[in-house]
Amino acid sequence: MTWLDLPEDTGFGLDNLPYGVFSTATSSPRVGVRVGDYVLDLAEAAEAAGMESGILWRASSLNPFLAHGREAWTAARAWITEILTNHSYQDVVEDHLIDLADVTMHLPVSVGDYVDFYASEHHATNVGRIFRPDAAPLTPNWKHLPIGYHGRSGTIVVSGTDIVRPCGQRKPPDQNAPTFGPSTRLDIEAELGIVIGGATALGDPVPLDQADEHLFGVVILNDWSARDIQAWEYVPLGPFLGKSFATSISPWVVTMDALRHARVPLPGQDPQPLPYLRGGEGEGGASDAYGLDIGFEIEWNGTEVSRPTYRDMYWSPAQMLAHLTVNGASVRPGDLFASGTVSGPEKDSRGCFLELTWSGQEPVTLDDGSSRTFLEDGDTVVLRASAAGRDGGRISLGECAGTILPAREL
Amino acid sequence: MTWLDLPEDTGFGLDNLPYGVFSTATSSPRVGVRVGDYVLDLAEAAEAAGMESGILWRASSLNPFLAHGREAWTAARAWITEILTNHSYQDVVEDHLIDLADVTMHLPVSVGDYVDFYASEHHATNVGRIFRPDAAPLTPNWKHLPIGYHGRSGTIVVSGTDIVRPCGQRKPPDQNAPTFGPSTRLDIEAELGIVIGGATALGDPVPLDQADEHLFGVVILNDWSARDIQAWEYVPLGPFLGKSFATSISPWVVTMDALRHARVPLPGQDPQPLPYLRGGEGEGGASDAYGLDIGFEIEWNGTEVSRPTYRDMYWSPAQMLAHLTVNGASVRPGDLFASGTVSGPEKDSRGCFLELTWSGQEPVTLDDGSSRTFLEDGDTVVLRASAAGRDGGRISLGECAGTILPAREL
Repeated sequence: MTWLDLPEDTGFGLDNLPYGVFSTATSSPRVGVRVGDYVLDLAEAAEAAGMESGILWRASSLNPFLAHGREAWTAARAWITEILTNHSYQDVVEDHLIDLADVTMHLPVSVGDYVDFYASEHHATNVGRIFRPDAAPLTPNWKHLPIGYHGRSGTIVVSGTDIVRPCGQRKPPDQNAPTFGPSTRLDIEAELGIVIGGATALGDPVPLDQADEHLFGVVILNDWSARDIQAWEYVPLGPFLGKSFATSISPWVVTMDALRHARVPLPGQDPQPLPYLRGGEGEGGASDAYGLDIGFEIEWNGTEVSRPTYRDMYWSPAQMLAHLTVNGASVRPGDLFASGTVSGPEKDSRGCFLELTWSGQEPVTLDDGSSRTFLEDGDTVVLRASAAGRDGGRISLGECAGTILPAREL
Repeated sequence: MTWLDLPEDTGFGLDNLPYGVFSTATSSPRVGVRVGDYVLDLAEAAEAAGMESGILWRASSLNPFLAHGREAWTAARAWITEILTNHSYQDVVEDHLIDLADVTMHLPVSVGDYVDFYASEHHATNVGRIFRPDAAPLTPNWKHLPIGYHGRSGTIVVSGTDIVRPCGQRKPPDQNAPTFGPSTRLDIEAELGIVIGGATALGDPVPLDQADEHLFGVVILNDWSARDIQAWEYVPLGPFLGKSFATSISPWVVTMDALRHARVPLPGQDPQPLPYLRGGEGEGGASDAYGLDIGFEIEWNGTEVSRPTYRDMYWSPAQMLAHLTVNGASVRPGDLFASGTVSGPEKDSRGCFLELTWSGQEPVTLDDGSSRTFLEDGDTVVLRASAAGRDGGRISLGECAGTILPAREL
């Protein structure tokens, strides 16, 4: 029990404790942990409590903490839990709890490499049907490996950052040559982002049963996508400008420790993957290749239009990391990989508007009576997510929001 | 005329002056400039000469210098030229010239985002014929935009770093399911890497006529490629593990200022690209979209097997940067983009072994009498390059070398 006065269903209780980077009117960006509607200034609290770890928290990103690895993460979580429950710390700590309304949130991580996977069978099947109607919806490799590609880390922005509508080349099927202009098929992709901690050496893979040493935590990620630009450019080397203009992430990194009760078996993999992607039996009977019971909500100008379900994902985060490194590629603290669009089996659990409106053929109606296929200027999308916690409780991942600004004149 | 005693054909005379990061037995990594077979310790020289810029050079990467932008680059080049020509500096500067044999070279840049283009028509045509024999060799978009994709920045290594043979999935056409193991079709790609300086804001493109503000300099780049892994994974989202295990770059960044006499018109673009990719008439009559007269040599275990020619590239570096940012993607100092394999029209100017041996069907014979299709363990590849200088002189880009180590047991 904490000495703090927290609402019962906060989603940010002591079982969550996500990390973020905040600033106030008088302090520069530094690491904090969220509890209820407060941010605990970790650098100040640690120094007030005589801990030497304060220097880690005074950083403007989580990267120094991420570099320290799992033992340090476990110790930090235990210490934060202790100072928020043991009354003898109350006087010292209370001074360093800041009202959420008084802080500005920043990008929590300085992202090294960013990889985007494609791990939902429902999403890949739908997109295959829409983009390649004359071929089998899943490519032959899809069930053998988690398909992924590198994205642009320098254009990852924190929730709340406005998104400028991108310009680019697109070629409608009825024309002979491409034209240039603002994207007319601007979309979202609701994804889970996984933050990596610890470093590996070049040449050393991370086997599946060691993935937990490097899986630090998760954020909500919106992989903004310009479908018209993407469709024209992506053969043969994959998505590029259709994605690289912006990717938004939520400000609070919810740790894998907080998601312990959200672990679920995968929906099932057939054919059985190669040994390096196959989970053994881990602690608590769960496979190393576990899924996560996380539910998403997609809100478009205030109307909830979909509820994607992460537990339906085909490939697990640990499998994605094992695959990403099996060729000897090294990882750095602050690397980020995303799951790909989270889509469930039902229409109202699809994670992007391309699928939800079936490439614009089935518009959705918002609460104000307006109709939408793709994003219009001024539209706001808010992604929310929460995970299963202990005894039916919920662990909140917070939200990831963005508003579309008109394209710039070139 | 310099007061230094330089060999006439050094390739590293005062018209070159490339930047790199070096250390010695007694000093930590810092920025130096190469002149002849010496490295000038810029931090020490600047401080000895009473300049305030020393702090920029004491960094372990070029990034702080790159952040300062073109005006600072021009001023630095003028100052370095002055202290190496004006005899009154000789006493002060001479103490800070270090023999190349006494330094260890490091990665010159902390790379933010790494993008790999595909800008050689000869290469793209050859690869298309080999990978997709039943389709047109160039995809319909190829002549409308410089195709590119993001690569892994965290596995970029400096010349001389050993390369561990990657493992991964590959599916030979005569089998039903993939197998796992060391790549059996390990290849190189000889490319030009372009280092970006200055930063832009998210949403702001870099127009073609402003590209020179951000094009800092070039390196030789070897995009090691596992063709069997790549062929199985790359549809539909592009190359991933077939490339991400390692990319090597040469240690000396040759500035665009040093390449002024290497500017040449492009071989010609038909159809005419969209306006944002079309060069106006720049200074000296050259278009903003200029090519570069740079010749490569590929040496395989001591045998020269090819001489790729950069002047045959279809898309120019400025066009690649304009395209990369036209959707509003921002750039950071230290971002790197590569040209894609440099292949000329002739067989002996092909820039990768996939092309040179026509997918292994036409082995090459090395000077020791051995035969090769793809790389064997212990093989060493050295890429060298030089650019046209003033009055028939050559500007050396140095070399980019790597040796293949056997695959790790998983």
